[in-house]
Amino acid sequence: MIQYEPCWLRYEKNDQYKEPCFETIIAKELSPIFCVALEELKFAITSMFGIEPSVISISKPMERSFIWIGTLDDKELKDVLLDSEKFRSMYSDAYIIRSHIHNGKLRIYIAGKTSANTLYGVFHFLRLLQMKEDIHHLSIVEHSNNSLRMINHWDNMDGGIERGYAGKSIFFDNGQFTKNRRRIKDYARLLASVGINAVSINNVNVHQLETKLITEEFLPEVEEVAGIFRTYGIKTFLSINYASPVEIGGLSTADPLDPQVRRWWKETAKRIYQYIPDFGGFVVKADSEFRPGPFTYGRDHAEGANMLAEALAPFGGLVIWRCFVYNCQQDWRDRRTDRAKAAYDHFKPLDGRFRENVVLQIKNGPMDFQVREPVSPLFGAMPKTNQMMEVQITQEYTGQQKHLCFLIPQWKEALEFDTYVNGKGSEVKKVIDGSLFGYRYSGIVGVSNIGNDSNWTGHTLAQANLYGFGRLAWNPDLSAEEIANEWIVQTFGDDPQVIEAVSWMLLASWRIYENYTSPLGVGWMVNPGHHYGPNVDGYEYSHWGTYHYADRDGIGVDRTVATGTGYTAQYFPENAAMYESLDTCPDELLLFFHYVSYTHRLHSGETVIQHIYNTHFEGVEQAKQLRKRWEQLKGKIDEKRYHDVLERLTIQVEHAKEWRDVINTYFYRKSGIDDQYGRKIYR
Amino acid sequence: MIQYEPCWLRYEKNDQYKEPCFETIIAKELSPIFCVALEELKFAITSMFGIEPSVISISKPMERSFIWIGTLDDKELKDVLLDSEKFRSMYSDAYIIRSHIHNGKLRIYIAGKTSANTLYGVFHFLRLLQMKEDIHHLSIVEHSNNSLRMINHWDNMDGGIERGYAGKSIFFDNGQFTKNRRRIKDYARLLASVGINAVSINNVNVHQLETKLITEEFLPEVEEVAGIFRTYGIKTFLSINYASPVEIGGLSTADPLDPQVRRWWKETAKRIYQYIPDFGGFVVKADSEFRPGPFTYGRDHAEGANMLAEALAPFGGLVIWRCFVYNCQQDWRDRRTDRAKAAYDHFKPLDGRFRENVVLQIKNGPMDFQVREPVSPLFGAMPKTNQMMEVQITQEYTGQQKHLCFLIPQWKEALEFDTYVNGKGSEVKKVIDGSLFGYRYSGIVGVSNIGNDSNWTGHTLAQANLYGFGRLAWNPDLSAEEIANEWIVQTFGDDPQVIEAVSWMLLASWRIYENYTSPLGVGWMVNPGHHYGPNVDGYEYSHWGTYHYADRDGIGVDRTVATGTGYTAQYFPENAAMYESLDTCPDELLLFFHYVSYTHRLHSGETVIQHIYNTHFEGVEQAKQLRKRWEQLKGKIDEKRYHDVLERLTIQVEHAKEWRDVINTYFYRKSGIDDQYGRKIYR
Repeated sequence: MIQYEPCWLRYEKNDQYKEPCFETIIAKELSPIFCVALEELKFAITSMFGIEPSVISISKPMERSFIWIGTLDDKELKDVLLDSEKFRSMYSDAYIIRSHIHNGKLRIYIAGKTSANTLYGVFHFLRLLQMKEDIHHLSIVEHSNNSLRMINHWDNMDGGIERGYAGKSIFFDNGQFTKNRRRIKDYARLLASVGINAVSINNVNVHQLETKLITEEFLPEVEEVAGIFRTYGIKTFLSINYASPVEIGGLSTADPLDPQVRRWWKETAKRIYQYIPDFGGFVVKADSEFRPGPFTYGRDHAEGANMLAEALAPFGGLVIWRCFVYNCQQDWRDRRTDRAKAAYDHFKPLDGRFRENVVLQIKNGPMDFQVREPVSPLFGAMPKTNQMMEVQITQEYTGQQKHLCFLIPQWKEALEFDTYVNGKGSEVKKVIDGSLFGYRYSGIVGVSNIGNDSNWTGHTLAQANLYGFGRLAWNPDLSAEEIANEWIVQTFGDDPQVIEAVSWMLLASWRIYENYTSPLGVGWMVNPGHHYGPNVDGYEYSHWGTYHYADRDGIGVDRTVATGTGYTAQYFPENAAMYESLDTCPDELLLFFHYVSYTHRLHSGETVIQHIYNTHFEGVEQAKQLRKRWEQLKGKIDEKRYHDVLERLTIQVEHAKEWRDVINTYFYRKSGIDDQYGRKIYR
Repeated sequence: MIQYEPCWLRYEKNDQYKEPCFETIIAKELSPIFCVALEELKFAITSMFGIEPSVISISKPMERSFIWIGTLDDKELKDVLLDSEKFRSMYSDAYIIRSHIHNGKLRIYIAGKTSANTLYGVFHFLRLLQMKEDIHHLSIVEHSNNSLRMINHWDNMDGGIERGYAGKSIFFDNGQFTKNRRRIKDYARLLASVGINAVSINNVNVHQLETKLITEEFLPEVEEVAGIFRTYGIKTFLSINYASPVEIGGLSTADPLDPQVRRWWKETAKRIYQYIPDFGGFVVKADSEFRPGPFTYGRDHAEGANMLAEALAPFGGLVIWRCFVYNCQQDWRDRRTDRAKAAYDHFKPLDGRFRENVVLQIKNGPMDFQVREPVSPLFGAMPKTNQMMEVQITQEYTGQQKHLCFLIPQWKEALEFDTYVNGKGSEVKKVIDGSLFGYRYSGIVGVSNIGNDSNWTGHTLAQANLYGFGRLAWNPDLSAEEIANEWIVQTFGDDPQVIEAVSWMLLASWRIYENYTSPLGVGWMVNPGHHYGPNVDGYEYSHWGTYHYADRDGIGVDRTVATGTGYTAQYFPENAAMYESLDTCPDELLLFFHYVSYTHRLHSGETVIQHIYNTHFEGVEQAKQLRKRWEQLKGKIDEKRYHDVLERLTIQVEHAKEWRDVINTYFYRKSGIDDQYGRKIYR
């Protein structure tokens, strides 16, 4: 009995099709991944159409309708998959879905470059069925340029999830692995259905017990989990503690140049691969926020990462090295140090020094997953070093899954941002898919938003962020609208009113959240620690390097070369010039780059202070609108999900008012300037 | 082997006296309290003089020098203690110390009204010896008007101490009672040495496990602890959970008027007294900060307290009912609600409705132990209701025992505050000693600052607050200077340079702490939750009712009747008028009572903003001075204590700079007004 939601894999009863092809599935191969593909297909067809298909393993087509599950290599498909050769060579991941009418009988061919790709093809085909698309004229050729489409879990073995807002871990509880393997399998299904091919299962902040995940104490169970993911084409990674040689290895140092340390890691890698032959590799947060790293021993990040990479290389493993490195003991009085500059300053000089099985994992923005940030200038700045982008699916700074915030538009902006590294058209998506510099490994990684809540993500509508992350990781060219539409139809059905309302809600939600929270890109006006709710000065006098510098005259961080921290110079000239000048700096990032007076006029024509008031009053009205649109769907959504979402939207409206009033009062008290429309601002 | 400090009971080697009287102690009675008095006297004499005295239990004086330990009833003392009759009738606690030369032989007579009083006399005598006073002409008559001199522990059974800054609990650890009974005995010695006669051992926030302290599961161990305190004349109290009848009694209600609930508490009281015949009673935090209480059942505090009092009355037990009741879910936008008014508003109307074995425990100020507050207007406002004053020895808001803050001067101010309830001369000390209204039970209670740190209080110099609390509870007329001097000599010896330096440090420290923290009585500019360190807006937009309302023009809470919350009207007319008017409101409380502009001129002649800058710059210089004065004592204090204190003073200096800079920058950014002396204020 499944006690939790199927999310977008609902396979609701479907009377769109009357196809005899659903009765027969032909599959040549019966590898584990093919087996789960067949299992999924059978389950879905039975669920949608009430037909239990027969699976036939033959080597030539029969004279009837069928669905053929194969690979691009299948000789039998030569006539059908004319262009398969091309895809086999060009992309790491590709599949084809073709429909073919033969003697009046519909045949569907699904073939992947690998068995995992075939599984993706099956999920794609099931998506088409759930969306009630015409399947008589399919000629789909799909591929992904991102070789790594990864999820990072920040799960701890006590069952807690750092920045988790959807219950406890599905992997761990009470210092042990959980017993509910069915839940992990269903999670793997969700991930594979949107093309995720890598997952790290433990927090990047690796605590004492988790340090032992790479030992024989836990490797048998890591392998059990990896085995589940493996059958869905997903590689398992572990976050490691850089100080492991000291903490569990009995050595006196973790110096990456120390021969004993190198040997220890090599032996450790060998042991891991004995248990998990396709182990993905290590995710490493080193020398960041009090985590140990090579700095302790006077080594740099390249030396630190390469030592691990050397240990993993014989087995094909990767080192995913996080670039979230900055001085987290900054003095707030020090206006010269700029946390935004840190990743670039640390890593740019090391370009070319990393081994080829090292991938740098760079957060989308230079700070830390704020609702609005510019794109990290590190993207494109290291042509000789594998890079991937890290985004946060879990809504740490964007409402913690109590507020609706569909993040696909935010990620799209980052992916579409033109770095100008090779002139116009050098978008971030082309950096991280490796096409611009020929990276061997690259892609995109998202920090998970799921937990053991029955709906997986706390807020039911936050499922769309997980879905959308996977879809975007597969194909960054998909629009937010397309993704939203796909997700809604699969999740709530195809009622046009539902589609229209939920689509509007999703697509408007990021800007709405931005409206009633921190204005104009300045960020960080949140309660310290848990990061929920407004606190304008919460981080203003802290050691975290996160300031807004609001005074009675104005607000913002001067990051210009001319008069500020010089951060703008980290961008390629076109962007550097754009951000440097008040004339060209986009409004939504104004306070990230410039200190301006409250009466400074934006390109929009509003003053800064009036913009703050306007967006905060409007933001609350928009939040109310979110709730109202949802309420109009009563009766069109099942009761449970309807009420769950309504409850969260109500919390959001109330909390948006708190945001509005705190922000408005704060700036009124500081500026002394009245709202020009005379709305209520508490004194 | 004692691993922790003896504090002021050091009994260092002492060559001041060559008295044969130390060789013989005469004691008629050998009750448990007398036994510990003798034990202490013997231990101290042996330690100081290298003489082990003989104890002789006879009924008539011998022809030699001796120390006589008796009671005021001793017939043999009729000639010596001429005026004993008077003290026996007048005071609940009294003792006499007399020296008498008989045939050239010095005899010391120590006699108390009760055996506990005799013990106090012994400790008094030992204090004189430690201070090397002349003992040939003693004619000391001591009494205390405060019948309750109490310590509240906020210890939890997991070993943690709420607002504790000196290690873990000495009573509890890991859900159980601790095994180190010697430590509890030594704690009882310290308390008895300064006249404490009541102690509650568990936190007023009574959690799940602690709720069961009144059950047979834990009563045997409560009695063990109570037995230790009993031999030092100290009664043991427990904090109780008002919802106990529901949580552990199996009832469906805790309504104080419900017959079953009444019966349950009566049975509970009976059970407790079977274990602990002299059990002190209950300390109750009800309907406060999410604790359960009578409000749940539509009953008031009198009904709530009287029900418990009725259960305890047959056994002579007391209900200590805390008045820390306010709306802790206030809307910061609501300027009409004033937390400062809450205790008075809740309790004043109930005057005369409490049973005579109920005592109201009222915090010194109307808010919560800020470095500076006015005195609670509730003192004196309830002539027909027993009142006692609660102060916080533990330094929650006054530097958490990392900063030096000798609190005796603060408490003195509260005790000396004239309420004017019966015209001039109606000081708070006369309210709470019961003399003004003839209270049956009253006194003073302090929240403990001790834990299992080897020096008991984290900061060695914070021992002076525990010492001073006890001394002041015994006799509120003692000056802060006298108390400091006593403590220093007993703790560090009688080197004049040490006395002079430490005395200056102690006596200056409260004002120094005030200088670099929250200005002019406004309070609350601390980090929420743990309350350590500056955060000017930390509570400004919270639900705790603790605001300063600083804007670009000025700061302060208007609590006047004319234009504000009307809080001033809770005082008797003389004080109400003083606080209501800007002309007469004391500078140090200005912002507690008035909102004023930054350029408002104080009585001192400074503007408010300049006062803020001046005190904050000066505060840091003074903190440096504290450290410097201490450094000059190097070699005159044992190494361990010297370095422990130096380390804390260094932390204090650094943290004072943080306070200075945050406060100054905050107000500079808000006011835009420069320091007139051009000192460094970060922008």
